[in-house]
Amino acid sequence: MYRRHRIRIKEILKADATACVDQTITVAGWARTVRKQGAKLMFVELNDGSVGTSLQCVLHEPTCEGFDGCKTNGGTGASFQFVGKVVQSQGEGQLVELQVSSAKLLGAVYAGNIEGTEIGGMLYPMPKKDLTLEHMREQAHLRPRGAIHAAAMRIRHCMAYATHNFFHNHGFLYIHTPIVTGADCEGAGEQFGITTLLGSDHHQKDIALPVDPNKPIEETVIGAVDYSTDFFGQRVNLTVSGQLNVETHACALSDVYTFGPTFRAENSFTSRHLSEFWMIEPEIAFADLTDDINLAEDYLKYCVEYALENCADDLEFFENNPYGEMGLRDRLRNVIANPFKRLTYTEAIEILQNAVAEGHKFEETPVWGMDLPSEHERFICEKVFQQPVVLTDYPKDIKAFYMKLNDDGKTVAAADVLVPKIGEIIGGSQREHRMDVLKQRCLEMNLDPRSVWWYLDLRRYGTVPHAGFGLGFERLILFITGLSNIRDVIPFPRWAGNSKF
Amino acid sequence: MYRRHRIRIKEILKADATACVDQTITVAGWARTVRKQGAKLMFVELNDGSVGTSLQCVLHEPTCEGFDGCKTNGGTGASFQFVGKVVQSQGEGQLVELQVSSAKLLGAVYAGNIEGTEIGGMLYPMPKKDLTLEHMREQAHLRPRGAIHAAAMRIRHCMAYATHNFFHNHGFLYIHTPIVTGADCEGAGEQFGITTLLGSDHHQKDIALPVDPNKPIEETVIGAVDYSTDFFGQRVNLTVSGQLNVETHACALSDVYTFGPTFRAENSFTSRHLSEFWMIEPEIAFADLTDDINLAEDYLKYCVEYALENCADDLEFFENNPYGEMGLRDRLRNVIANPFKRLTYTEAIEILQNAVAEGHKFEETPVWGMDLPSEHERFICEKVFQQPVVLTDYPKDIKAFYMKLNDDGKTVAAADVLVPKIGEIIGGSQREHRMDVLKQRCLEMNLDPRSVWWYLDLRRYGTVPHAGFGLGFERLILFITGLSNIRDVIPFPRWAGNSKF
Repeated sequence: MYRRHRIRIKEILKADATACVDQTITVAGWARTVRKQGAKLMFVELNDGSVGTSLQCVLHEPTCEGFDGCKTNGGTGASFQFVGKVVQSQGEGQLVELQVSSAKLLGAVYAGNIEGTEIGGMLYPMPKKDLTLEHMREQAHLRPRGAIHAAAMRIRHCMAYATHNFFHNHGFLYIHTPIVTGADCEGAGEQFGITTLLGSDHHQKDIALPVDPNKPIEETVIGAVDYSTDFFGQRVNLTVSGQLNVETHACALSDVYTFGPTFRAENSFTSRHLSEFWMIEPEIAFADLTDDINLAEDYLKYCVEYALENCADDLEFFENNPYGEMGLRDRLRNVIANPFKRLTYTEAIEILQNAVAEGHKFEETPVWGMDLPSEHERFICEKVFQQPVVLTDYPKDIKAFYMKLNDDGKTVAAADVLVPKIGEIIGGSQREHRMDVLKQRCLEMNLDPRSVWWYLDLRRYGTVPHAGFGLGFERLILFITGLSNIRDVIPFPRWAGNSKF
Repeated sequence: MYRRHRIRIKEILKADATACVDQTITVAGWARTVRKQGAKLMFVELNDGSVGTSLQCVLHEPTCEGFDGCKTNGGTGASFQFVGKVVQSQGEGQLVELQVSSAKLLGAVYAGNIEGTEIGGMLYPMPKKDLTLEHMREQAHLRPRGAIHAAAMRIRHCMAYATHNFFHNHGFLYIHTPIVTGADCEGAGEQFGITTLLGSDHHQKDIALPVDPNKPIEETVIGAVDYSTDFFGQRVNLTVSGQLNVETHACALSDVYTFGPTFRAENSFTSRHLSEFWMIEPEIAFADLTDDINLAEDYLKYCVEYALENCADDLEFFENNPYGEMGLRDRLRNVIANPFKRLTYTEAIEILQNAVAEGHKFEETPVWGMDLPSEHERFICEKVFQQPVVLTDYPKDIKAFYMKLNDDGKTVAAADVLVPKIGEIIGGSQREHRMDVLKQRCLEMNLDPRSVWWYLDLRRYGTVPHAGFGLGFERLILFITGLSNIRDVIPFPRWAGNSKF
C-alpha cells in the first residue's frame, strides 16, 4: 500500500488546525525562510507545496536531535525532514507550530559560490525577497518553489480536475485527438512542421532536403519539399485544434470532449498568446447553438464555483498579492450570480457605434463585418454589461468554413464568450451538417473538399446537427487567478525564441 | 442551463430498465440495423454511443407520425430522432423497446452510388457485418460507430477519469509538461524535430535550409543546420517523456503527475508501439523505490477495480468478442486479488537460466546485463508467477542516467511492472538525488552535464530523495480490454507512414 512517510502540511494547517495539537508528526519540505536566534534556536518556515502557507518549525538544541547537522543549510530552499509535536503557537500569524524533536537536513543550498561547492544562499536564484515574474520565468525549473507559481499550479490542477468532473458527470467521453496531423484545413493559424528530414538529433550535419523540382505535388505546386521520404511519408504538422477530429467521435458517441495541447507558430508577443497551450473542446450531437451556449455557460460557472469552494486560500493569496487582483473573488462570484448576457454580433456593433457617436474613442472604428479587436470585446463586457457576454451570429467571412450558415446567408451560428479582464475566453459554433452547404462553404473559403473527405463523410452518412466550442485553458487560469500574463500560468511557456527547459 | 433534448440510451437500458416502462421519451442516435416488415412496420436498432447495446425502436405506420419520411434512409448508419413510449419487449434479447409515436430522419446514408448523391447502404464503409480491425483502422473517422471501437473508447475514457481521480484523491497535482522541448538528454528514443524552416504550409517551395558550413554549433559540430533562424531559435523536438520536467515541480510541490502525449520516431511495426501515445508519469518527493512500487501497484489496482465496477457491460462485450479475450474479467480480478510479486532483476535472470537448464527454449539466451526481451518478461509473469510481477534493481548500463545508483555500484534502483498479456506496463525508478553521483553518471553516459544544468540545479538547491514511474496509457487500455493491437485503442493511431485524418 502506498502511503507517505509524512503528513502533508495542508492537513495540519487546515481551519481546525488546533485539532492536531499534541500530535507527534513527521513533515518534510523546503525552507521558505530560516531564522536563527542565538546558537541554540532556529526557526524554519517549512513548505511542501500542498498549501501556500508554511509551517513554522522550532528547533531548540537541547531537545532537538540532529540540531547540529541542520545548522549549516544555506537558508531559503534547503530541504528538511522534521519529527515533532504540534503545539499552539506563541508567535503571531499562525495557530500552531511544530516543536521539532528530531531534525534532518535532506539537502542544503549550495549557492555560496559559483561552482556550487559551498553551502550558502548568496547565489540562490529564488531567495525569499521580491522577485519579478520575469525573473522567475527565467528560472522556470525553480519557479514552483515561489508562492505565486505554486498557487497558480494548484489552481491549474483544480481547474483540470473540475473540467474532467464536469464532463464526466454530464456523460461526456474524453477523446484524445491526435497531436501529429496530416490535415491541412483548419486555417486557425500558422502551423509547425514535424519532420525527421532534418535528422533525429540536434547536431546532424550534411543535410540535403529531398526536393524534386519536377514532381508535381497536389497538382499545382512544383518544386516543393518531397515529404515522401519523411517519417510519415507526407507533410505533417502539430495540431492547431482537435475539433475536426473530435467531431468524428461526436457523430457516433454523441457527447465528447478533448483536452490536450495545441500549437500556433505565430509571433504573437502578447500577454495572452503562447505557441503551445492546452485547449478544452467539447462537441455535442443533436444540439444547436443555444445548447452549445448553455453548455459553455454551465461549464464556466462550474469551474468558477469549484475554484471558490476548493481554492479559497489561493484565491485569497492572489487577491492580496500585487501581481494578483483586488476584488478577485467578488469578480468571480459575479460570474456565477447572473445568466450571461446574450446578444448578436450585429447588436454589439450597434452598441459600439453608439458609443462612438457619444464620444468614446476606439483605436479601430467599429464596422459591421470586422473581426472584433480585444478593445471592443472588453468594452462590451467590462463597460457596457460588466459581466460575461455571449456574442452570436458573426459575419460568415470572418469565421471558419465549418460553421453553420444562418438563413440570412450572411452570418453563421457562431458564439464567443467574452469575460471581463480577458476578452474572448470561449469560441464555439453549431457545425454545418448539411453536405451541400458545407461543400459550398469549402469552395468559398478556397478549401479543396477532397482534403477534408473524411470530415465530409460525417455529413454523407447519417449526418446530425451538432455543435461545440473551444476554451483556452491558460486563459481560464488567468481568469481565475487574476494574473495578467499567460506565461505565468503554465509550467514551461513556449513562445517565439523560447523553448528553454 | 445545459440539458439534452433526449434521454441517453444508457439510462433506459440500465439494469432496472423496466422502471422506464410507460414513460414517453425522446431518443436520438444512429441505426445499427434497420429491418422492414411489410410496408407499414420498421424496426430500428438505435445506438447513441452511451452504451454498447442498442434500443429497439418500433415504427408502425398507422400510429407513427413521420413514418413516410423515415422509410428511405440507407439503413445502417442513418440517424434518427424518435419520440415514443417505452414498453416491455415482445421479442427476445431485450427487456424493453420503444413504441415510436413520432419519427424524424435526421440524416440518411448516401452510399447508394460513388458520388454520394443516392440514398443507399451499398458503399457504406461500416455496414453491420463482420469487419476486420484492419478495415476499421482505415476508416478511423467512422470507426467509433462500430461496437468494438466505441467500447474501447468508453473504457479509455473511464481509465483517464480513474487516473485523475486516483491522483487527485491522493493529493497529487496534475502538471502539464511541455510537448515542444529543447532538451536533448532523455535518450528514451529517436525524436521528431519541430520546425518552421520548411515553411508553414504543405506546399511551400524553393526552400533552402540555412546551413552555415563554418559556424561551430555546440563547439564540436561543423556544418549542421543553423537553427538560429528557426521559430524557437534552436533545434526543438517533440517530447519523449515529461519526467525530467515534472521533477522540477515534484521538487517544490512534492507529489505531482503528468498525463500527456509523448512521441517516438521509431520504425517499430509492432502491435505494442505507436509514434504518438499518451503517458502517465507520477513523481513523488521524499520517497524511495519501495514507495514508488507501492504507488504503481495501488494505481494499477485502482484502475482495474474502477473498470470492473464501472465498465461491466463493455468488459462483458470484450469477453465474448472474437477480438477480445476469453476469461478477461477473471484475469482482471486476479490482478486485484494478490500483492504483486516482487523480485530483483538478478533473481529473474536466475529463474530464466534455470528454465533453460530444464529445457525451455528462448530466442535469446538469458544473460545478466541484458535488456530483457518481451519473451523473457512474459515468461516470468505468465508462466512462472501467473500474476503481475515487479522486477527491481536492473544493471545500470541498460538504464537511464537519472536512476539512483545502488550501493553495489552495478545496479540502479529501477522497477518495471510486468503483467500477463502485455509484458512491461510500467517503468520507474528512484531518481539519483546526489549531485556528485549524478554528474558522474552523466559523464559515464556521454551526456554533457551542462545540457541538463537545470536538472542538476534540483540537486544543488535543497535536493530530496524522489521517485516516479511512467505508464503507457494505451498499454493500460490493451490490458483492460483484452484487445491485442495498440492501434485499436487510440482514436487516430500514428505510426511510420501513417498520419491520416
